[in-house]
Amino acid sequence: MPKQPKTLDDLFHDTLKDIYFAEKKLVATLPKMAKAAQHPQLKKAFESHLKETEGHVQRLERVFAIIGKKPVAKTCDAIVGITKEGAEIIKDYKGSPALDAGLIGAAQAVEHYEISRYGTLRTWAEELGLRDAATLLETTLGEEKGADQTLTDIAESAVNLDAEAA
Amino acid sequence: MPKQPKTLDDLFHDTLKDIYFAEKKLVATLPKMAKAAQHPQLKKAFESHLKETEGHVQRLERVFAIIGKKPVAKTCDAIVGITKEGAEIIKDYKGSPALDAGLIGAAQAVEHYEISRYGTLRTWAEELGLRDAATLLETTLGEEKGADQTLTDIAESAVNLDAEAA
Repeated sequence: MPKQPKTLDDLFHDTLKDIYFAEKKLVATLPKMAKAAQHPQLKKAFESHLKETEGHVQRLERVFAIIGKKPVAKTCDAIVGITKEGAEIIKDYKGSPALDAGLIGAAQAVEHYEISRYGTLRTWAEELGLRDAATLLETTLGEEKGADQTLTDIAESAVNLDAEAA
Repeated sequence: MPKQPKTLDDLFHDTLKDIYFAEKKLVATLPKMAKAAQHPQLKKAFESHLKETEGHVQRLERVFAIIGKKPVAKTCDAIVGITKEGAEIIKDYKGSPALDAGLIGAAQAVEHYEISRYGTLRTWAEELGLRDAATLLETTLGEEKGADQTLTDIAESAVNLDAEAA
């Protein structure tokens, strides 16, 4: 049987597996970032985003169900690379006044990757007529944007200034 | 001599080397994306962003000069992972009506990574009192946001609809 060309449905499904991997990776990574963070406000932000991230995993499982597929993760090279950079920050800046600024930068790279992925998936879900899936993806997109904004607020207030003053 | 703890200056310098690698990688990658793109509007968007990206490399070299450092690239695992995903899209979706939608998704992941990096670098430049550097970084940040918006506009108009209709 000749191989059928891939469609937007396939692209949606492939990208869903990619972000599912990413969210599960983050559930494992965020506790390390919370542990490393020096400023209590940043530690709390990572802890509360961990809870949200667990919810994102469940929401993705509902999207898999909507398209009649089992939730399967496919290695996401992007998030592997981004979280590797975060791990290097934790190692290289341990004990440094700039550690928290570095952690915020790494976390914002993660958030922006997710913002791009969820924005793309939401658009495709709409085009494929998957309204319930689009709503679920939109909800998570909003939470990722909120997490990014929280990090910006923290960066602009105490944490970076601490690093500068040290 | 005991090792000095790293400071925000070091973090700024390290992150500059990281995005310098990323921009140079993109100068090599964007022609491949332009070549793969099916829709003329998307092909043109990649070509024109390539020209901007060459300008971003030069702007980063000016920032290196401002802090009195030689422009040196340090492997950026994040962009390696993100562009690897883009290369997979080109391979897996060759000849597919969904190829352009996939290319846009991959390119927006790149843009968002850069938006997070330039936002972070600009904030740190301001805190370090590097006003000229902050202005240069802010200019590139604006162009990355513009490129992301262009891709969203294309995605919401012709390209994805073509894929859906196919």
